[in-house]
Amino acid sequence: MTYCVALKLETGLLFMSDTRTNAGLDNISTYRKMTTWSEPGESAITLLAAGNLATTQAVISLIDERMKAPGDRSPSILGLPSMFQIARAVGEILRGEIARSAGEGQSAEAFGATLILGGQVRGSEPRLFMIYPEGNFIEAGADTPWFQSGEVKYGRPILVRAFDPAMSFEAAMKLLMVSFDSTIKANLSVGLPLDYALYPEGSLTAPPIRRVEVEDADFARLSTGWGDALRAAFDSLPDVTLDD
Amino acid sequence: MTYCVALKLETGLLFMSDTRTNAGLDNISTYRKMTTWSEPGESAITLLAAGNLATTQAVISLIDERMKAPGDRSPSILGLPSMFQIARAVGEILRGEIARSAGEGQSAEAFGATLILGGQVRGSEPRLFMIYPEGNFIEAGADTPWFQSGEVKYGRPILVRAFDPAMSFEAAMKLLMVSFDSTIKANLSVGLPLDYALYPEGSLTAPPIRRVEVEDADFARLSTGWGDALRAAFDSLPDVTLDD
Repeated sequence: MTYCVALKLETGLLFMSDTRTNAGLDNISTYRKMTTWSEPGESAITLLAAGNLATTQAVISLIDERMKAPGDRSPSILGLPSMFQIARAVGEILRGEIARSAGEGQSAEAFGATLILGGQVRGSEPRLFMIYPEGNFIEAGADTPWFQSGEVKYGRPILVRAFDPAMSFEAAMKLLMVSFDSTIKANLSVGLPLDYALYPEGSLTAPPIRRVEVEDADFARLSTGWGDALRAAFDSLPDVTLDD
Repeated sequence: MTYCVALKLETGLLFMSDTRTNAGLDNISTYRKMTTWSEPGESAITLLAAGNLATTQAVISLIDERMKAPGDRSPSILGLPSMFQIARAVGEILRGEIARSAGEGQSAEAFGATLILGGQVRGSEPRLFMIYPEGNFIEAGADTPWFQSGEVKYGRPILVRAFDPAMSFEAAMKLLMVSFDSTIKANLSVGLPLDYALYPEGSLTAPPIRRVEVEDADFARLSTGWGDALRAAFDSLPDVTLDD
């Protein structure tokens, strides 16, 4: 499994993904699930991938190849005029790759993957999409300006309760660390290190991908602090009365 | 889906289950998923059922019938000498019922159910078991003296962080309400009202099943209070530093 989250803040986009992939419990590896592309000053996109690793790596290679072959019939993804067009192109690549793998009578489900795509094209706002294995996609709106994919349930309650699009990048980073910490504490298929990328609105360059390492001091402090704060929050709740 | 939790406390057992069953989003009903039996002074058990409703209702009817036919070849479940024997008998009834439904070439998975069984037989401690569709089971030990079944993920982080077997029934009740609230906020297949039962160690009578209704004041206060307390807990966390 995997856990990926992207938040659409008033000041830009924040992406975070874990790095654990597994095929069974004794076949665990560390892979980056976050990729960025940019044509500086024109457009910048970040992609988070959850699902079949062969599929998502192929999708990334296909996007890469399109970037590098400007004379190709297919235009470079980044040359497209809007984030909507970019999401549509990435969705088609994903669907095509899954269909190719499943072509010989295999079940398409086994090759499935879900992508979170966020970025900005010059002249419009940053936008955020969730792309399904079928190639179609939805966009984050004002009511729920964030997407999760992969092992989403453990880390969801704190996002539902504490996310606010007006929060700073620092506060949003703290929120994602807590959400990932809750997931990592409960599920072996999600693990440190974590990758994250901050995209400030209007920068139009690929955000650097940074890493929260296993021994990261901020993360350790948050993890301990969150356990204590949760227990304190719990103790502060009003008592309930039990009928006898 | 369903959400059921049972906690093994130093002072006894606490059970809670939601009441929503659904077959599709437009076929929602309210059913009690908690059943108790007792031979006062000798033994008392409580059963929480998650999974196929036809299967779990049949299991309960079969247990009922065994209770009412003391002259039957099969002894009454409650006459068995230990909680282990009772769990084994219930596991066999469950496995048998699933096998019967799946007999005509249907997949056994569709008829699956998972049971949480807790109770006490005179002369021994209260014990708590999780019974799988295959009829086998595990017992709650000192390290993790609680079981969840059904839609377990949303409500798990707070249990992992705040459960303590030495907590009072009131505190444990508060903990379960928070865990159910997190689940209900995130997942449509779990809903109020909630049933709960307190079994104080040594009582050896069936605990009354009480209900947290949709308009329960304690639950509403906890739900609001928990949202506020979570945000306050989150704000109290140390800041993180972002590399630039």
